[in-house]
Amino acid sequence: VNHGLRGSDSLKDASLVRRLGKKFALPVEVTRVDVSKLAAENGESIELAARNVRHQFFAQCASLHRCPRVLLAHHVDDQAETVLFNLLRGSSGLKGMEFQSSYQVGQKKLQFFRPLLETTRAEINDYVAQRKINYREDHSNSQAVATRNRLRNEVIPLLEDIMGRDIKLPIVKAAVTSKSKTLALQEILESYQLEDPQGRLFIPKLIKLSPALQQMALHDYLKKNNVSEISSELIKRCLNLLENPDISKTNLPEGRYFRRKEKRLFVD
Amino acid sequence: VNHGLRGSDSLKDASLVRRLGKKFALPVEVTRVDVSKLAAENGESIELAARNVRHQFFAQCASLHRCPRVLLAHHVDDQAETVLFNLLRGSSGLKGMEFQSSYQVGQKKLQFFRPLLETTRAEINDYVAQRKINYREDHSNSQAVATRNRLRNEVIPLLEDIMGRDIKLPIVKAAVTSKSKTLALQEILESYQLEDPQGRLFIPKLIKLSPALQQMALHDYLKKNNVSEISSELIKRCLNLLENPDISKTNLPEGRYFRRKEKRLFVD
Repeated sequence: VNHGLRGSDSLKDASLVRRLGKKFALPVEVTRVDVSKLAAENGESIELAARNVRHQFFAQCASLHRCPRVLLAHHVDDQAETVLFNLLRGSSGLKGMEFQSSYQVGQKKLQFFRPLLETTRAEINDYVAQRKINYREDHSNSQAVATRNRLRNEVIPLLEDIMGRDIKLPIVKAAVTSKSKTLALQEILESYQLEDPQGRLFIPKLIKLSPALQQMALHDYLKKNNVSEISSELIKRCLNLLENPDISKTNLPEGRYFRRKEKRLFVD
Repeated sequence: VNHGLRGSDSLKDASLVRRLGKKFALPVEVTRVDVSKLAAENGESIELAARNVRHQFFAQCASLHRCPRVLLAHHVDDQAETVLFNLLRGSSGLKGMEFQSSYQVGQKKLQFFRPLLETTRAEINDYVAQRKINYREDHSNSQAVATRNRLRNEVIPLLEDIMGRDIKLPIVKAAVTSKSKTLALQEILESYQLEDPQGRLFIPKLIKLSPALQQMALHDYLKKNNVSEISSELIKRCLNLLENPDISKTNLPEGRYFRRKEKRLFVD
């Protein structure tokens, strides 16, 4: 996808991709979209508009070539930035990109794979240098996405200077540990079958859990029911319905309620 | 504790503390230690030597005044630095200081409490200004502990500039969430009673867990047995003993072994 954000550079990128396609006898699809204009029209950020354009184009190519899988080239350095970015914007934990994720574009479900997510940029550079592989640097990296680029160009080098060593791998590893803890807890909570057939939380089961597990269960339940802005204060307020028989509902964002009725808790 | 690191400033600090003690009719104990000299003698870092000196003095005061609890003044800003520091040095997660912790000094067990750990420095500044409370800035903050201070003075302001808002609370909240997940998992693993009376892991119980939980259980077990440098590679190698009947031991650091024998796994 030529995003039209980098003038003649992007034409040279497209021509390299076409040459590589010819060399390896692989089909190449190129499209050109004026992302700045589109973002302005839709009142979106350039980042969001660019992503939507890419996903739609991937979906078209997937239909055309009957190939529902998309390989993305994110590496350890990208992942470290993502984890740091999510941590700083308060997404409650160390969340990075997934090796495998899926994305709905209209009727079409695309599967994304990131096979290089445990490979560092330095390793990729070595590989490319040893094999004398032709490549181009994507300079939009250093313009379009200001925050991400400042993390990459200012924060990570500063942190590595201060710590006296690489900090990207420790960050990525911490995110992997965090992810495996979250998965383990989700497995456990699912095995408890806390919901009744109508998808409401069954109080006699919930009440037997430790406070920490009750909080996890509530958090997952609210998230599943598309409650936005789930704070620890909100979770405490909801759990209060478990202990206090005088209260039978509490406010949720967007005018919804969390209610207790007949030994069940549910979003209304 | 006058650490002897800041010349006449530290004498002024001590005299303010004495005046405050008099004003509120509270006993004050002051000691003076040349921490630089001590650190050089023991081949320790200044940070470590200073902490040991403080802990020993706290223990002496605790005996003298029969008061085993020590209140420490760490606030949200300190906690954010600690979490970031631990993340960057690869301690596998978001670990901060605890509201309550205990510390063994010789025969004496001291309990530390940090009542201001959810209070921001800005809130403390407001409180002090409104009540016209006399205070002194500890300028050793900006000299002794180089790494921590660079996080405070360079990294956190840079990150807040990039993100356009406070990043200390999101970091601290993420650490709280991470902590509660870890606690919940520990509770669950304890409830499974995976160890036999000799403290060895009982394979028929371990084998029933999901891979994520097996990894947690192994990690906790190795940590409890003082195995240093527990990497995910080491954990995978140990778990291999569960699945591969041909292997009955694997190397641990410091010349120790992890062994399988009679349906048990243990450190040897």
